[in-house]
Amino acid sequence: MPTGIWLIGGRGSVAVSSIVGALAVRAGLAPPTGCVTELPELRDAVLTGFGDLAFGGHDPASIPLTKKAEALAVAGVLPSALVAAISADLAAVDAEIRPVPTAATQAETAELLVADLVSFRNRRALDQLVVINVSSTEQTPPPHPAHASLARLDGVLRSGRPILPWSALYAYAAFRAGCSYVDFTPSTGARLPALAELAEQCGVPYAGHDGKTGETLVRSVLAPMFAHRHLRVLSWSGINLLGGGDGANLTTPGPNAAKLASKQRVLAETLGYQPQGTTRIDCVDDIGDFKTAWNLITFSGFLGSTMRMEFTWHGCDSALAAPLVLDLARITAAAQAAGRVGALTDLAFFFKDPLGDVRHGLAEQWQALTAFVAGLDARA
Amino acid sequence: MPTGIWLIGGRGSVAVSSIVGALAVRAGLAPPTGCVTELPELRDAVLTGFGDLAFGGHDPASIPLTKKAEALAVAGVLPSALVAAISADLAAVDAEIRPVPTAATQAETAELLVADLVSFRNRRALDQLVVINVSSTEQTPPPHPAHASLARLDGVLRSGRPILPWSALYAYAAFRAGCSYVDFTPSTGARLPALAELAEQCGVPYAGHDGKTGETLVRSVLAPMFAHRHLRVLSWSGINLLGGGDGANLTTPGPNAAKLASKQRVLAETLGYQPQGTTRIDCVDDIGDFKTAWNLITFSGFLGSTMRMEFTWHGCDSALAAPLVLDLARITAAAQAAGRVGALTDLAFFFKDPLGDVRHGLAEQWQALTAFVAGLDARA
Amino acid sequence: MPTGIWLIGGRGSVAVSSIVGALAVRAGLAPPTGCVTELPELRDAVLTGFGDLAFGGHDPASIPLTKKAEALAVAGVLPSALVAAISADLAAVDAEIRPVPTAATQAETAELLVADLVSFRNRRALDQLVVINVSSTEQTPPPHPAHASLARLDGVLRSGRPILPWSALYAYAAFRAGCSYVDFTPSTGARLPALAELAEQCGVPYAGHDGKTGETLVRSVLAPMFAHRHLRVLSWSGINLLGGGDGANLTTPGPNAAKLASKQRVLAETLGYQPQGTTRIDCVDDIGDFKTAWNLITFSGFLGSTMRMEFTWHGCDSALAAPLVLDLARITAAAQAAGRVGALTDLAFFFKDPLGDVRHGLAEQWQALTAFVAGLDARA
Amino acid sequence: MPTGIWLIGGRGSVAVSSIVGALAVRAGLAPPTGCVTELPELRDAVLTGFGDLAFGGHDPASIPLTKKAEALAVAGVLPSALVAAISADLAAVDAEIRPVPTAATQAETAELLVADLVSFRNRRALDQLVVINVSSTEQTPPPHPAHASLARLDGVLRSGRPILPWSALYAYAAFRAGCSYVDFTPSTGARLPALAELAEQCGVPYAGHDGKTGETLVRSVLAPMFAHRHLRVLSWSGINLLGGGDGANLTTPGPNAAKLASKQRVLAETLGYQPQGTTRIDCVDDIGDFKTAWNLITFSGFLGSTMRMEFTWHGCDSALAAPLVLDLARITAAAQAAGRVGALTDLAFFFKDPLGDVRHGLAEQWQALTAFVAGLDARA
Repeated sequence: MPTGIWLIGGRGSVAVSSIVGALAVRAGLAPPTGCVTELPELRDAVLTGFGDLAFGGHDPASIPLTKKAEALAVAGVLPSALVAAISADLAAVDAEIRPVPTAATQAETAELLVADLVSFRNRRALDQLVVINVSSTEQTPPPHPAHASLARLDGVLRSGRPILPWSALYAYAAFRAGCSYVDFTPSTGARLPALAELAEQCGVPYAGHDGKTGETLVRSVLAPMFAHRHLRVLSWSGINLLGGGDGANLTTPGPNAAKLASKQRVLAETLGYQPQGTTRIDCVDDIGDFKTAWNLITFSGFLGSTMRMEFTWHGCDSALAAPLVLDLARITAAAQAAGRVGALTDLAFFFKDPLGDVRHGLAEQWQALTAFVAGLDARA
Repeated sequence: MPTGIWLIGGRGSVAVSSIVGALAVRAGLAPPTGCVTELPELRDAVLTGFGDLAFGGHDPASIPLTKKAEALAVAGVLPSALVAAISADLAAVDAEIRPVPTAATQAETAELLVADLVSFRNRRALDQLVVINVSSTEQTPPPHPAHASLARLDGVLRSGRPILPWSALYAYAAFRAGCSYVDFTPSTGARLPALAELAEQCGVPYAGHDGKTGETLVRSVLAPMFAHRHLRVLSWSGINLLGGGDGANLTTPGPNAAKLASKQRVLAETLGYQPQGTTRIDCVDDIGDFKTAWNLITFSGFLGSTMRMEFTWHGCDSALAAPLVLDLARITAAAQAAGRVGALTDLAFFFKDPLGDVRHGLAEQWQALTAFVAGLDARA
Repeated sequence: MPTGIWLIGGRGSVAVSSIVGALAVRAGLAPPTGCVTELPELRDAVLTGFGDLAFGGHDPASIPLTKKAEALAVAGVLPSALVAAISADLAAVDAEIRPVPTAATQAETAELLVADLVSFRNRRALDQLVVINVSSTEQTPPPHPAHASLARLDGVLRSGRPILPWSALYAYAAFRAGCSYVDFTPSTGARLPALAELAEQCGVPYAGHDGKTGETLVRSVLAPMFAHRHLRVLSWSGINLLGGGDGANLTTPGPNAAKLASKQRVLAETLGYQPQGTTRIDCVDDIGDFKTAWNLITFSGFLGSTMRMEFTWHGCDSALAAPLVLDLARITAAAQAAGRVGALTDLAFFFKDPLGDVRHGLAEQWQALTAFVAGLDARA
Repeated sequence: MPTGIWLIGGRGSVAVSSIVGALAVRAGLAPPTGCVTELPELRDAVLTGFGDLAFGGHDPASIPLTKKAEALAVAGVLPSALVAAISADLAAVDAEIRPVPTAATQAETAELLVADLVSFRNRRALDQLVVINVSSTEQTPPPHPAHASLARLDGVLRSGRPILPWSALYAYAAFRAGCSYVDFTPSTGARLPALAELAEQCGVPYAGHDGKTGETLVRSVLAPMFAHRHLRVLSWSGINLLGGGDGANLTTPGPNAAKLASKQRVLAETLGYQPQGTTRIDCVDDIGDFKTAWNLITFSGFLGSTMRMEFTWHGCDSALAAPLVLDLARITAAAQAAGRVGALTDLAFFFKDPLGDVRHGLAEQWQALTAFVAGLDARA
């Protein structure tokens, strides 16, 4: 089942780590550590093998993939020997990462995007093509009535007035092209009623939002721990220090607000109340692709005794995100093959801000995921 | 359903915190924070109300319960206003905490223990009596063939030669008296084939071992997180700094070894391999009843990138343990009422070193617990 | 040598902790832990004894000192037995904490302040009176030409147009009354050329700014460590979580900016360059008078290896500040007695943002302080 | 002034990092970050330039220096480009690292060591030769009367009975050869009265013990901070997690005891009392040449409030040690040139367990060091 992965932001750190990793695993040069689809509970379901994955994408930047991969090796994200070993394969992928097309109206731009997707799918004879957004976080767009109805949306798109942020325009184009869509960022993506309508109409599934790779991942197991032990969380505060382009982008007000909103859901929804405290994001260039997150949790136990817990997470965001991108592509492709349509809420395991009214405890999400994937298998 | 709780180590910090807490909740002076049996998922099952709990116990020490409670208030474990408010009730319990009886042979000592249990149960007209070990950690006894057969064990007990550590002798006496038994420590308790045989014969349930209140609690949610994300834990090391009598006891070689063995299970059994690293316990008197545990976890992700996580847990062991003691008593009494016999493996949620071949992930243990309690209810 | 301490913000946490502490040490109920003037290196110089300290002050709030002290005891800042033991003495001080007077012009308000100071000094037959600002942090006022000249300042003060923030108006009044002035906050205080001129004219000394009690204290020893080892600090980032009124005030934009500017000096001036990173302050009510500060330092060593250090400081700001307030009063009074006039730059040991172009390493500041105090002694 | 550095353990991580670093700085390929002798306060004194340093040494291992350097590059200690760039120079040094000679008696072995030192000094026309011990930590030898007298020592050395650990035998040989000696480990080195006698007789200086590179470095600035603020340290506990050969060696009982004794001095001698708590060392292979140390400090402030501080240090021991090895060689050579004889107690800045009855605060040690080096200069 040849499956394509179309990466929005295809020359960025997450995309290049995903591509290098898939090529390395395919070549037998690295184990699939970090890929949950390679755990025994998921491995045997109907998932495309690493050898059947094909990569394409869009990116406004023009840095060659091999250059970017070498830079990631210097930064300690990728092993330099591995980058050297798969450099020919990587160069071959490079030709499939195209500049972002633009036209006079968003309707016309969408048509260009559709054309790129269809052309890639045909040229590579793909059974499935999954469009995955791994570009920079956008700010949340102002609400507009046309977001609520596909008919009205189509009208405005043709008018020349920009109405959709890029992440949503990509979802629009993906659906029109019969592709599934995954948003790995906190951007808008398919989260508009008009786009949900379109997904139903086109019979394609979608997933999101915002890959859960660090602080929120830890919160998604600690918050249920406090809840199950009937301990009262008094405050939960944190700070994220990160560098690179991601750090710079996430400290600008719009994307920062979008990101923090995404991070806040897990606590209130798991605990049933919102403890005091916020999460900060600060950019520290020197830290590069690694991120340090520190959290302080104060809580109250039996008879009012006050206690506290701190954690520090020092992780490489790209190395944590890349295997999940591959997982999401494989599972979403299988879901489409199995006829699933609309929001894939059982993929909450992967996301900070999952679609639907779902549980935030990681263990419950894991159970939902394994049941979902087993269901795809049975259907096949 | 009047239920008795017989505390081995009835004048210790955990016991006194449990008693003070139960009296305070009964009097409406404090909420049952930390009691998992008061969560919505468990509250409606057939569990004894706080007003129906009666406390007794054994302790070699003679410090009055009110004195001990006041000392715990000075140490910041209990609120002093609360201790003052329930001091009359506490003094009433004091009369039921008796010195530990001893006789020439362990068989005769067991008879004295049985007599105390039966007398308490009859005098207070209790439907159920749960014997709970909250005394100091013992060292693991040398193996002996009589541990494997009830007939041989009875013979040696009568011989005058000590064969059972106190925790096991208490389990023996509890079973003979028709009482259930819970071991909140890593001591031997009922974990001998001869005692399992006796529990079956007497038709009583038992639970254990070693209440999960801090470092291991956190490990029981973090280890599944790494496993579910297919991240490879390279090392997991820790240190526990604690004061009080518990600190002093746990740094003596025998109890220390027993405790560390109990702490090690969760990692190997959850991850499927034993990462490098150990856990240390050091006594720091000044820290008193609070405990600080620090852990460093190093792990490997996609393509070999190395990452790390640290956490510090600063908790009050008595305040974390006391509500679980009450939970265990209520659930075990209900289990006995429902006719359950032998090891209650579904109570793994509460323990570092649970009985049986069970899952160590806290979320799975929570599901097993709620299903178990719901089953008791249906049966009633 | 009877010495008065006039506290601006006399009913706040720091003021009340200072007063309770001085009364307790005087009564022999507590050791002077935290008072550097009681270390052997300083104890024998000409410093007023605790028994010779008299307290007065201004505060817009009307909460009785005993009430405030009891609240601090509940919050764990002061021992409740101690508060009870000195409550009569504390009530006596209460009468000397007056409401803040105001009049039509700042010139007239200053006269009322002067009258209160002079009246207190005469009534209590004090040799010295030290005015100490321990009220909330103000925002930095907009610059004004009258700040640069005493003659112009006097003119504007009489005009009815507010030109000085309260901290500076107090310095003005203190100097006019022949009192020394200490600013324990990052507010303006005496840091205006016109006020320096007035201090010279009145022959009085002053000290400041911003008591160094936690994060910056630690930075003032760690930064020299990196410098002396020729290690290159790449980034130094931090977050302060604190509750109470201080927390709420310090997260409002004006005071926040003033505080952060004060905190930033130590790194740049000790290292000789400004490493990347910022310090955040977030209010978490639950943490109350305790403050948790976390810092991450990344640094580069030999041949470019990158390393890191984290620290967490969990301190009680009032308990850390109060003994320094007493120290500053005793030393400043001795300085005035010894004829010192103007900025006391040798008191940098106590401050985050010290007056003058001074060294920021704590060890060097300690040496400057001990030499300064010894010099006062020799002069006497 | 051509100066030789003779490294005991010349193929180990610290030695190879020192050699690579000196070659790289000499070639202008890296700045001398971490070398305190390159700070403005020391740079202009009479210290040998990097271009005038010559390396030799002994090591029982035979791994080529280039191989070892490449392994250190893989481990992230050295930059691989740098190792490649100086590989020819490194190969030239390789010939000067010889196997450790042994003979029937320690007297004869010492003669062979002397011969190697003298041969190297003559062959390379060195003005000075400094012998530096960077080999594994030894266990403390049992006391022997011959340690107290040079005459008796000489007798036993000739007898064939081993009386000196290797570190001391090297000091003996160095002194006999007219070389100075530096012990960068906690081993015995020159710390025997008989060897002090020999150093005086031979007119050579020596320095030690145990390079201060991580946990103790931080303690040497934090402990004075608490002391200068008159805060009472209640407990100070820590754990060191480290890998590599050093980790394995330091967890064996003898070297472990020697190391911990060395680490304990700073607290008691700086604070004037020994706070409760210990330091642990655990080996975690995976951490490799990096070391993570965590410390918890609890302290008491004004009126008994209890506070706490934690720090985590994540450093590369070899990268921290190597520049100090170069510093010590340059300063010790200059001291010998200036006629200094015996224990160089002013070099305490560099050591965990310094020679003599010296101050442990890092800032005071820095001042002693700069004064000492300035004194050498004046003398020249």
